[in-house]
Amino acid sequence: MTETNQDIVLYSVADHIATITLNRPDKGNALSAAMMDALEAALRSAADDDAVRVVILTANGKIFSGGHDLEEMLGHEEHAWQKAHFERCARLMATVRHLPKPVIARVQGAAVAAGCQLVATCDLAYAVRSAKFGINGINLGLFCSTPSVALSRAIHPKQALDMALTGRLILAPRAEEIGLINAALASEDLDQAVMDAARAIAAKEPQAIGLGKDLFYRQAELDIDSAYQLAAGRMADNMDFAETRAGIRGFVDKH
Amino acid sequence: MTETNQDIVLYSVADHIATITLNRPDKGNALSAAMMDALEAALRSAADDDAVRVVILTANGKIFSGGHDLEEMLGHEEHAWQKAHFERCARLMATVRHLPKPVIARVQGAAVAAGCQLVATCDLAYAVRSAKFGINGINLGLFCSTPSVALSRAIHPKQALDMALTGRLILAPRAEEIGLINAALASEDLDQAVMDAARAIAAKEPQAIGLGKDLFYRQAELDIDSAYQLAAGRMADNMDFAETRAGIRGFVDKH
Amino acid sequence: MTETNQDIVLYSVADHIATITLNRPDKGNALSAAMMDALEAALRSAADDDAVRVVILTANGKIFSGGHDLEEMLGHEEHAWQKAHFERCARLMATVRHLPKPVIARVQGAAVAAGCQLVATCDLAYAVRSAKFGINGINLGLFCSTPSVALSRAIHPKQALDMALTGRLILAPRAEEIGLINAALASEDLDQAVMDAARAIAAKEPQAIGLGKDLFYRQAELDIDSAYQLAAGRMADNMDFAETRAGIRGFVDKH
Repeated sequence: MTETNQDIVLYSVADHIATITLNRPDKGNALSAAMMDALEAALRSAADDDAVRVVILTANGKIFSGGHDLEEMLGHEEHAWQKAHFERCARLMATVRHLPKPVIARVQGAAVAAGCQLVATCDLAYAVRSAKFGINGINLGLFCSTPSVALSRAIHPKQALDMALTGRLILAPRAEEIGLINAALASEDLDQAVMDAARAIAAKEPQAIGLGKDLFYRQAELDIDSAYQLAAGRMADNMDFAETRAGIRGFVDKH
Repeated sequence: MTETNQDIVLYSVADHIATITLNRPDKGNALSAAMMDALEAALRSAADDDAVRVVILTANGKIFSGGHDLEEMLGHEEHAWQKAHFERCARLMATVRHLPKPVIARVQGAAVAAGCQLVATCDLAYAVRSAKFGINGINLGLFCSTPSVALSRAIHPKQALDMALTGRLILAPRAEEIGLINAALASEDLDQAVMDAARAIAAKEPQAIGLGKDLFYRQAELDIDSAYQLAAGRMADNMDFAETRAGIRGFVDKH
Repeated sequence: MTETNQDIVLYSVADHIATITLNRPDKGNALSAAMMDALEAALRSAADDDAVRVVILTANGKIFSGGHDLEEMLGHEEHAWQKAHFERCARLMATVRHLPKPVIARVQGAAVAAGCQLVATCDLAYAVRSAKFGINGINLGLFCSTPSVALSRAIHPKQALDMALTGRLILAPRAEEIGLINAALASEDLDQAVMDAARAIAAKEPQAIGLGKDLFYRQAELDIDSAYQLAAGRMADNMDFAETRAGIRGFVDKH
């Protein structure tokens, strides 16, 4: 990461948990090209660091992320730039999905448009009750097409279409009801919920977590027979891990 | 539309909102071949009318729609007629899905079998609390196969199978919980909820709505990488609209 | 079924309802190879018996099923054995899905790992409120890959990943909320709920149930146009049944 990127995305590691913090609060943590690059770099740092077993993705300021940097987008008239920009965004989402370590969104404020897409893409998500969610680009005439890819895979279509077509925002408790986040919490309880999940994951065998996360998303795109074929192979691979055999042995001996 | 069709389906437009009303209340708004043709014709009128930006689909009488016209179906012994009949029904559902304008179901009464399928197929749906939903053809020995296509894409499988296998009906509040409709409302609040959604949509850039609705259903059938590839192209296309650039410019200048 | 298998899986039929009971309570009804074979044999008995129209799958003891038999698995070092073992498990799940008679899980206690997968795979599921659900193999270092195949098709991804990555258990009321089961019940109400569903299904035309269950899972794997094409053919097939025509005729004549 360059000096600049370190400014707009903070990165720290403690107790096997990497925390990545969007840090451009005066810009609503907009996902500019620079912000996406910095976030991607931070995710790759987490991937490459053997000490890291799980990632918390959060943000400074009142807003988690307001989505793309509209001023930056207006600065480019060329169709090709726009397409490349959204492909870059799609690559960032793929990086989250392919990261061999779970990514937990800690949503301290509004997550809209590509910001909401990012939350939908994380493996787990916890939010304060007051946080708002929306894929509301349509309010400015820009349908949230790429966010729809993430939301339509996270929640039922009618609930996703309500957000995409009417541009209306929902609050975190509703986001929990429809499956977009794991839980909506009082603000004083947010860190506990995030850390409970992060510590639970950090305590597991990391290789099994990596294998499992990859399997989960990969099999979801297959027909069920192919999915089972792949998953059965993964179970056998996982049974070859010495740590897994030791874990099972310990459990069996105790019972 | 022929004179007859105008009788069984009413059509009106005001403030960019088309209202299509099933109007065969004495027959429970059964989806006879004639009713499906009239509904299809009304949807095409809405598609072709540049003044229309959103469609409300509702019904007169106590029942939204009781499904296919069973007497008509009994009148045909031939397998080929039956198959063609259900293909016609599938085409009607495809017309709703492919219509470049959102379709909102305003469910004032029971929606069962193909009537429930129609609600599941609409982009958004609002119902009175007392409205019942079912895919209950199995009670007469006819499994709701075509309705299952729509419901299995709108809600989770166990909830869809309960309806299809046991033939039991559910009330609107349960339909909301499982994601089949957007909201269950007191009858005095139904119109407000429907109009809020319709007006919100009618106020958006219509070309972006059309592009987005098409993208939403199209990408849902693709693997996620292809879905993002398609969606990124759509975002770039959408950014080429003068109205969209003006909308974003207005927002940026204000903030 | 061999003598031994009859010991670990009980099978009985009354009033068109087959009840299959996992009966190895001292081993937490572990899905050992022998247990899976016995369960498969019992399911095939139900499939082959024309008197059977619906299957209830339940268990003796405090636990519905704790998943695979870990001691048995530890006894095999070979990768090939493990892969074959999980393929056998996948075949068992396919047998439930392909059985031309609905299978209702009656969950009287904890259902974890492959036990939870079995519940997710059944067509319908009812559980006592105190029953816990988990795909928590990760707690021992073994990611629940094959259970993820079933759960990711039954509920939304974030809720499935929470269970798979953190190894945490959820209670039946939460399982109902996220769609994993049809209802969580007071223990004195469990049998009524299961029998209501079973009797409702047993009262239907069995051929239509068989055709419909098969269609439901088959079409879910197709694109929507192919799904409708298949389903329209099934509706026409179903209309050829004399019992179906008689059922519809009776209804029409009464109304």
